[in-house]
Amino acid sequence: MGISDLFDPQSIAVIGASATPGKLGNDAMANAKEFDGPVYPVNPSGDGTVYGYEFVDSVADTDADLALCCVPAPATPDVIEDCGRAGVGAAVVFAGGFAEAGEAGQTRQAEIRQTAEEYDIAVLGPNTAGHIIPHKNIFSSFVPGFDEIEQGDVAVVAQSGGIGVTATFQLEREGYGISGMYGLGNRVNTDFADVIPKLDEDPQTKAIGLHIEGTTEIDEFAEVVSDATTPIVALKSGNRMRDFVQAHTAAPNQTYERYEEILTANGGAMAGSVTELLDASRVLAKSPTPAGPNVGLVTAQAGPGIMMADYLAERGATFPELTAETQDQLDDLLLGFTYDENPVDTGRPMPEFGEVIDTVARDDNVDIVLVYEIFEHSLGYPIDELETLSAELDKPIVFTVAGPYDPLEPDRQRMEELGIPTFDAPERGAYATSVLVDSVR
Amino acid sequence: MGISDLFDPQSIAVIGASATPGKLGNDAMANAKEFDGPVYPVNPSGDGTVYGYEFVDSVADTDADLALCCVPAPATPDVIEDCGRAGVGAAVVFAGGFAEAGEAGQTRQAEIRQTAEEYDIAVLGPNTAGHIIPHKNIFSSFVPGFDEIEQGDVAVVAQSGGIGVTATFQLEREGYGISGMYGLGNRVNTDFADVIPKLDEDPQTKAIGLHIEGTTEIDEFAEVVSDATTPIVALKSGNRMRDFVQAHTAAPNQTYERYEEILTANGGAMAGSVTELLDASRVLAKSPTPAGPNVGLVTAQAGPGIMMADYLAERGATFPELTAETQDQLDDLLLGFTYDENPVDTGRPMPEFGEVIDTVARDDNVDIVLVYEIFEHSLGYPIDELETLSAELDKPIVFTVAGPYDPLEPDRQRMEELGIPTFDAPERGAYATSVLVDSVR
Repeated sequence: MGISDLFDPQSIAVIGASATPGKLGNDAMANAKEFDGPVYPVNPSGDGTVYGYEFVDSVADTDADLALCCVPAPATPDVIEDCGRAGVGAAVVFAGGFAEAGEAGQTRQAEIRQTAEEYDIAVLGPNTAGHIIPHKNIFSSFVPGFDEIEQGDVAVVAQSGGIGVTATFQLEREGYGISGMYGLGNRVNTDFADVIPKLDEDPQTKAIGLHIEGTTEIDEFAEVVSDATTPIVALKSGNRMRDFVQAHTAAPNQTYERYEEILTANGGAMAGSVTELLDASRVLAKSPTPAGPNVGLVTAQAGPGIMMADYLAERGATFPELTAETQDQLDDLLLGFTYDENPVDTGRPMPEFGEVIDTVARDDNVDIVLVYEIFEHSLGYPIDELETLSAELDKPIVFTVAGPYDPLEPDRQRMEELGIPTFDAPERGAYATSVLVDSVR
Repeated sequence: MGISDLFDPQSIAVIGASATPGKLGNDAMANAKEFDGPVYPVNPSGDGTVYGYEFVDSVADTDADLALCCVPAPATPDVIEDCGRAGVGAAVVFAGGFAEAGEAGQTRQAEIRQTAEEYDIAVLGPNTAGHIIPHKNIFSSFVPGFDEIEQGDVAVVAQSGGIGVTATFQLEREGYGISGMYGLGNRVNTDFADVIPKLDEDPQTKAIGLHIEGTTEIDEFAEVVSDATTPIVALKSGNRMRDFVQAHTAAPNQTYERYEEILTANGGAMAGSVTELLDASRVLAKSPTPAGPNVGLVTAQAGPGIMMADYLAERGATFPELTAETQDQLDDLLLGFTYDENPVDTGRPMPEFGEVIDTVARDDNVDIVLVYEIFEHSLGYPIDELETLSAELDKPIVFTVAGPYDPLEPDRQRMEELGIPTFDAPERGAYATSVLVDSVR
């Protein structure tokens, strides 16, 4: 019962399921049908089947432990009551019209909270886009296209389902999947403090990205963040638009600084945008913990190298002097032509570029390696050297790719497999590196 | 003679051309071969043909007015002399090893500057990745893959060729092309002040993005920026890493503030990253000039709407009250269920979403329309309404897309054709809108 049925249901009921395309109850079925266990479309007016599943009249006719509630707000309290009687352990409530919507809505939300408590039901929402766990084939959402999201190693917990949805599709578009997306919505009884510990013990989840507008349960939040061993990143929004936030999720106003304090005390990071939230999560998911904050930067072109170095310097990163041995090796490789201090600039991609990375990466003064290289067809990326390095060295390597995208894509994917996170713009590689730097300060 | 031969050559010589794949002189030929006029591979040791073009012994044997110099630094002064004697009007010098490389390099650069002056040759570089003008089939660069870059309406002028290259491939990857990329490198006699006026009169170029490390000719720079009618955006880098910048392009140190003053005085913008440089250029290239800074925000999901509104509020944008008439129309459309003040939130995409955009866009209090909508297959994007709006209204509309990328792509492309720039993350749409806001302040 309760929260574990959100994460490990044996069977799913879709209450308000519909055979009519475009209806919420149809969209939810289109996603739920991917589940490996029984799926029950519940609708007393339903006739025949939807996506091959036969309609049932009532959730009482099922053994569902997870229910997706596709009914409007006014009908929801009764549906939750039905769920409780039927032994459902977790319910996802998509509808808006609760705490964010005036007095009537607040009354409704109080009602479902009470019923949920009585029956020990974990309610996700209301006012949420739901949740998905691709590696378990759980797609509890009405969002069209979610059934095609691949599994990945980053989870996103979003107070706004909308941000969760946007983040999910961005991860998918960029070739990653997701280990889970949880839209919290109004958090009637399922809040950050309930979800984070479950993700922390999920072996598929290597990092957790949070979107926060605000939660009254901030002490519980601080506690679970502090207890977690999985890296956590947060994007805090709604600092200015308080009326709008209030109308949206009835979230209390809290300062950015309070959240920053909680996150960074635990080696986590604050992100300034959806893209940064995903990039920070990805780099922390993939990278070993650096031994220190010292960055070795290797670039095949000076301009992007300067931009990245500049960005990192502004954020307080240090570029240590390389050892005499490293300097000698680089002099041999680069013939003194280019900038062979740290940052190390080869001027252009060259056959020796992999050796240059290897040399810098093995320098004891370097804790984190940041690379920028434009892809050239005849050279490819230095995959052999990166394979050796990732096998022999327990140091984060961040690779910033550029160039013609289709040709570079196979090498980029191989790097990701090797545990080398890749980023496709100079500022993205630099930001990801700054997150690693901050994680050990 | 001079700068116009960079922009409108009749024939091209590739000096140091090679038939050996992977060599600079071969990579340059692979790009130059796209040119519609004569292309001459120049190499006294060359035998037979390269990419179907017969080798010639000397640039003197050609009528080339543009020469791509693929020779090492020490050989370059003589090559420029040869070019002068042969009547070449513009030369692109790829090699490094000039002003950025000690005393010998400085002497070399002084030499080619003098020769170039004597013969009135515009030299792009040295130490550059060259330039490309896809709509004229000019690809004067050694960068593999440049020959496949499509034409677009944004030009990039980069002090670092590397940033120019990165920016070009990013524009290409995201489905735009480029109207021109110019890597300035050491700027022996071709600087921002020479290139910007030419781009300003190019009908294909609707906005100009600059990457600046620093130029001694800052007064000339200020003058051409002030004279230009084409919108200009700048990314200034190298504030911290001065040694590295010096080693790279021998650029003088100048403050960020001085450039900001010059750019914003003329309705331009400062960008903080390559992505922002391109997004700001794109939005200014596509959008009519707004009548004022007032933003009407229409969102189909509250969370991303809050983030965008928050971002814009931090940057000083205003969200005006909508007229009573607009409010009434929105109440009818939205049934008062969601947030129907500005920002206007429909909670989810709906068939009426296009009408909601239309209503807000026509409000006299609104100067700039920012939209966020997640794509749902059954609804698509409201293309019909956007077609009408773009035909009837001379107001910028910025559309932030999200969702499953392949299905939304045709609608996104159609919006671009309609003059509605699209952005694929909330922070990108918000940033682009802030650029429009700033452009009228």
